[in-house]
Amino acid sequence: MEAAAASSSPLSAFFSRPASRLRPPGFRFLALSVPFLGELHTRRCVALRPRYLRLSVAARSFGDGIIARPSSELRKKQSSGSLTEDDKLRALRELFSRPGIGIDVYIIPSQDAHQSEFIAECFMRRAYITGFTGSAGTAVVTKEKAALWTDGRYFLQAEKQLSCDWKLMRSGNLGVPTTPEWLNDVLAPGCRVGIDPFLFSSDAAEELKEAISKKNHELVFIYGYNLVDEIWGKSRPKPPMKPTRVHDIKYAGVDVSAKLSSLRSELIETGCTAIVISMLDEVAWLLNMRGNDVPHSPVFYSYLIVEIDGAKLFIDEAKVTKEVMDHLKSAGVELKPYESILSEIESLAARGAKLWLDTSSVNAAIVSRFKSACNKHFAKFEKQARDKKVDGETSPDMATNKHQDIRIEGPTGLYKLSPVTLAKAVKNKSEIDGMRSCHLRDAAALVEFWAWMEEEIHKNAVLTEVEVADKLLEFRKKQAGFMDTSFDTISGYGANGAVIHYSPEPDSCSVVDDKNLFLLDSGGQYVDGTTDITRTVHFGEPTPRQKECFTRVLQGHIALDQAVFPEHTPGFVLDVLARSSLWKIGLDYRHGTGHGVGAALNVHEGPQSISFRYGNMTALQKGMVVSNEPGYYEDNSFGIRIENLLLVEVVKLPNCFGGIGYLGFEKLTFVPIQSKLVDVSLLSPMEINWLNDYHSQVWDKVSPLLDGSAREWLWNNTRPLPAR
Amino acid sequence: MEAAAASSSPLSAFFSRPASRLRPPGFRFLALSVPFLGELHTRRCVALRPRYLRLSVAARSFGDGIIARPSSELRKKQSSGSLTEDDKLRALRELFSRPGIGIDVYIIPSQDAHQSEFIAECFMRRAYITGFTGSAGTAVVTKEKAALWTDGRYFLQAEKQLSCDWKLMRSGNLGVPTTPEWLNDVLAPGCRVGIDPFLFSSDAAEELKEAISKKNHELVFIYGYNLVDEIWGKSRPKPPMKPTRVHDIKYAGVDVSAKLSSLRSELIETGCTAIVISMLDEVAWLLNMRGNDVPHSPVFYSYLIVEIDGAKLFIDEAKVTKEVMDHLKSAGVELKPYESILSEIESLAARGAKLWLDTSSVNAAIVSRFKSACNKHFAKFEKQARDKKVDGETSPDMATNKHQDIRIEGPTGLYKLSPVTLAKAVKNKSEIDGMRSCHLRDAAALVEFWAWMEEEIHKNAVLTEVEVADKLLEFRKKQAGFMDTSFDTISGYGANGAVIHYSPEPDSCSVVDDKNLFLLDSGGQYVDGTTDITRTVHFGEPTPRQKECFTRVLQGHIALDQAVFPEHTPGFVLDVLARSSLWKIGLDYRHGTGHGVGAALNVHEGPQSISFRYGNMTALQKGMVVSNEPGYYEDNSFGIRIENLLLVEVVKLPNCFGGIGYLGFEKLTFVPIQSKLVDVSLLSPMEINWLNDYHSQVWDKVSPLLDGSAREWLWNNTRPLPAR
Repeated sequence: MEAAAASSSPLSAFFSRPASRLRPPGFRFLALSVPFLGELHTRRCVALRPRYLRLSVAARSFGDGIIARPSSELRKKQSSGSLTEDDKLRALRELFSRPGIGIDVYIIPSQDAHQSEFIAECFMRRAYITGFTGSAGTAVVTKEKAALWTDGRYFLQAEKQLSCDWKLMRSGNLGVPTTPEWLNDVLAPGCRVGIDPFLFSSDAAEELKEAISKKNHELVFIYGYNLVDEIWGKSRPKPPMKPTRVHDIKYAGVDVSAKLSSLRSELIETGCTAIVISMLDEVAWLLNMRGNDVPHSPVFYSYLIVEIDGAKLFIDEAKVTKEVMDHLKSAGVELKPYESILSEIESLAARGAKLWLDTSSVNAAIVSRFKSACNKHFAKFEKQARDKKVDGETSPDMATNKHQDIRIEGPTGLYKLSPVTLAKAVKNKSEIDGMRSCHLRDAAALVEFWAWMEEEIHKNAVLTEVEVADKLLEFRKKQAGFMDTSFDTISGYGANGAVIHYSPEPDSCSVVDDKNLFLLDSGGQYVDGTTDITRTVHFGEPTPRQKECFTRVLQGHIALDQAVFPEHTPGFVLDVLARSSLWKIGLDYRHGTGHGVGAALNVHEGPQSISFRYGNMTALQKGMVVSNEPGYYEDNSFGIRIENLLLVEVVKLPNCFGGIGYLGFEKLTFVPIQSKLVDVSLLSPMEINWLNDYHSQVWDKVSPLLDGSAREWLWNNTRPLPAR
Repeated sequence: MEAAAASSSPLSAFFSRPASRLRPPGFRFLALSVPFLGELHTRRCVALRPRYLRLSVAARSFGDGIIARPSSELRKKQSSGSLTEDDKLRALRELFSRPGIGIDVYIIPSQDAHQSEFIAECFMRRAYITGFTGSAGTAVVTKEKAALWTDGRYFLQAEKQLSCDWKLMRSGNLGVPTTPEWLNDVLAPGCRVGIDPFLFSSDAAEELKEAISKKNHELVFIYGYNLVDEIWGKSRPKPPMKPTRVHDIKYAGVDVSAKLSSLRSELIETGCTAIVISMLDEVAWLLNMRGNDVPHSPVFYSYLIVEIDGAKLFIDEAKVTKEVMDHLKSAGVELKPYESILSEIESLAARGAKLWLDTSSVNAAIVSRFKSACNKHFAKFEKQARDKKVDGETSPDMATNKHQDIRIEGPTGLYKLSPVTLAKAVKNKSEIDGMRSCHLRDAAALVEFWAWMEEEIHKNAVLTEVEVADKLLEFRKKQAGFMDTSFDTISGYGANGAVIHYSPEPDSCSVVDDKNLFLLDSGGQYVDGTTDITRTVHFGEPTPRQKECFTRVLQGHIALDQAVFPEHTPGFVLDVLARSSLWKIGLDYRHGTGHGVGAALNVHEGPQSISFRYGNMTALQKGMVVSNEPGYYEDNSFGIRIENLLLVEVVKLPNCFGGIGYLGFEKLTFVPIQSKLVDVSLLSPMEINWLNDYHSQVWDKVSPLLDGSAREWLWNNTRPLPAR
């Protein structure tokens, strides 16, 4: 075919961190010191909390529920308010000695309070204080020094954006210390290191505490307020306040009561009486609600506490419409102010809750507050017991059994991965139907786009990478149920395609023409599902080198697509299938091959992944959605990636050795792959059949949604390969 | 071709246990409780200490240095001396209360003191006491009960061999407790559980101790003597006393002084002053010596202690010839009696050694003795310090620094994997040359054998599985440098081929004819190398089912053979390549795909493996030898396995992404694969080329060693597949 439609997901997103049970988890912000970009960052990265939170400002509405913004409006330099970078540092340091604070260092990570991939603008504190707008980084300010850690993707950008007051710490470069190593080096022993405990997962805070204790530094949680917000003052953007909506049962498949009921069964099984859900997509999934608080993910800022006999949603009431209120009421979910989460935690402890806390995602403020409330409870209990003893009222039995009583009656915490993570990853029939359906509409938009683009290029129109991305958004917006892009479009021509996390800027991006490869990775949020697709095309004559590389990436893509494997197989086992064809000529790619995708939710979700990170033992399961996106990147030259989404399904086979089920993949994505880039002589007959069969399915499924020149383009681009 | 030559290795051998740093190691004898046979057993099973120690009696010499025994002489029922099974149990229990012992339980594992795969008959205590002669199992005798744990391979055999005094514990079956679980269940709290500390690795003993401490049981090390040996008395076979020999430098490649020098550099790097080597193959490799103490492995019972300025070999002097003595002297290696190992350990501690101990292989007797000697030293030191203080001689400085001084001056242990394991696994040029060379001679023997066998079968000769194995040995014995089989030949016809660990018995084995598949897995020990090969053949008309299964196994074999992969890739990453073709139709095999092989040493060695045991992170490295042996086993019907040995080598490629090397495999084994069993319609052109190319190499390399009918057979069996 001429041009293959395109769209996709930032891959860095799914460099999953090894499961913490196998390797000690790195700090979110310390992980910056590991060599692979992908290892950077993020909670429970068993999964793929993607490490890039692009700095697009909070999404705005476009027409009918559509909130996506064109790429040309993204990434405008964030207003830094009235203060210069120097003023900010001075102001921040002045706060260090404020009464009740008294710290020597303040650490400003990139996170919000929920470990979100995409965050609201008002939480972009690290960007505000440093001036550096890249998605990943940790700022550390001491009384004398200021340093920013970021990774290889952002070295150039950080060099440009940081003032001379900031030292750039190039994470992953040889000899560059991690944040605590640096603190232990530059500070006199016994300093007080301040953090906002809402912005660190409990696990990350614990590790930081441990690491800096080697030099007797103390980690100080500053609860009252965030020091950066103090300085930001009135110029700080308002917290998002968009109304939430009910996610229709026809897309959700299972109603809230049933989901809560399953969750409660899990609580009972583990002896718990309550659980705190803090990941925004987990709250949205459990409550069949969607929101507009951050770009690209239809989530809303909130916490959820589920108890055996009730549930409380902590959210700004302004976001709750009448319809949502009724929806929640019927499921027995009560509303509470977002800010009251900590007092509710204390109240849970006072009521003797056995509380399930996923310390890899729940922030340090909540976990720490629960622990201290537990301690308070025990202290009170012991005092009562002592007092009673003094009063001579204690029976010998009670005295003997005191500790046992406490164990039985007192509040306790169970620190374990949230059970919602896996439940959400395994899609039900309605979610699967929604995913299938939105992928066809998304494919129609992409075909219209590629047909348009090919014509423009052949008319010698001058189109920049950003203009191309904007045009794609226009086509998507025409599709029913489209709400937003699922991440900032990666539109990379030529050498830019080799930058895995490329994000074109209107002022500096390249023109797309017919002299080199063009990689387009994009996705859509639809009312019924989420898409993520990459295609790589050439509008002129590809070089033999480009064809060979493309063909080998395609062979890897086909090998994974066609994989059949027994139940209980962890995703990493399949990773080699996508790489073997590249390895045979000494090529490879520095990112994972597949990440999980939510159903009308986050474009990157766990717990499964297909990657060379061998620590993630999560087995692929029927109903999970994963991406299949091998690539190859030739520095300063071109980039190739071919990405479809796949649904894990049970395959019927003539045998079932071991008496267990065998799994395979059903394709969700149906957009042509550019045949022009295929060196047919490298393909096996099976691979040729695969491509022809895929294109025939693409035609059958997508052509009914098209007419005119787009339909004609699709016909031309789904013809079988010429026989060898 | 008609018949493909055969020979091979018991696969269970390389179900590697996950690296202990990733998962807690099971006890050797507890590992019996895990579901996969392969998980069973063995030390540092990162590698493949194969779990079967066949009960063939100590090997005897045949002619010119050949010590192999025909299968017909193997596995004769072990003489149990004059006592009945009941008498033995009674006698053992009487020893429990002997002064200085005072135990409630005695545990008898299958091991010798060196975690050897094959052990001398005098160490087969578990077989003696239970009457059960299977290779894997743990016997536990309490005052009232006697129980034997073994795995699925041996349930039938154990049922037959155990008297009614013994309870058979079917490891891996649902609800069957592990040994310590059972002890914690049947014993009153606070019992004394006795073991011979030489027969447990230190890690295994520690885990056992920990597990039984839950019920306050105490693990008691009985140093003086082994209780079973006491009962065995005069009927106990004598310890092996065969002379050792020098392994010629032309095969060893590197002289002893150079090996010791490298080892000493590693000691110095880690701050150690000495190391104990207790694995017999490690001692043999380091000292370029070989022996005849156990069947199938050319090793000799000994320990080696290497210090910075000397080395001591603990061995029965009767095994050391003049030539060996000179050889050792010139490398500065001193002789010590085998039994003096513990007193030397104590002396090391007294001299303040920093001792490297691989607690996964070094036995509990040695490690425990070293630890207690260290403690004794510190106690003495502290007493001296106290005495000095009393005398008023202590300077304030010395008092302050006392603990620091101890740390600097006292003996300490470094508990870490032996550095010899990896050094031995990476073969040097001479070792590789020897491996290549002996594989050709082994191939010649196999071709002669297959040619003979095919003729016999077509003459309707009645040949049993054992007779076939014996004939193969005859052919091998004619080859230069042949010393022994590298394990007991697995000669399995029809349904017997589906028993992965099948071991034919002269009295009960099947006749091989032309009605079903015949699987032959065997190997040879040559003066210059070690072989291990499996071929599966049909002398009549295979069914379509058999052809399909064989072809899919072959496809897996080819996929692994052809793998190219970047440096630093752990072996398990490649395992899926060998299984994918089977998975596609819902088939699989329950063993790993590849184990390491020694050079004129153990047929199973670590640390590398290619398996679905994902804990073994050892990267495959240039110079390592691994087997490639996918299979398929249809219960009660037939078994298929195709096994070659491969050498890991650097491959030259047009690219080297990431600036690192890429590795691939060179075949060592050159014996035809039976074309008759191949369903050519399932093969890709690449796979057809592979088979044709392989057979052309087999002809070129092996035909010069043959003449007459064997040469003619080889010609007929190396012809290209008919074009499709």
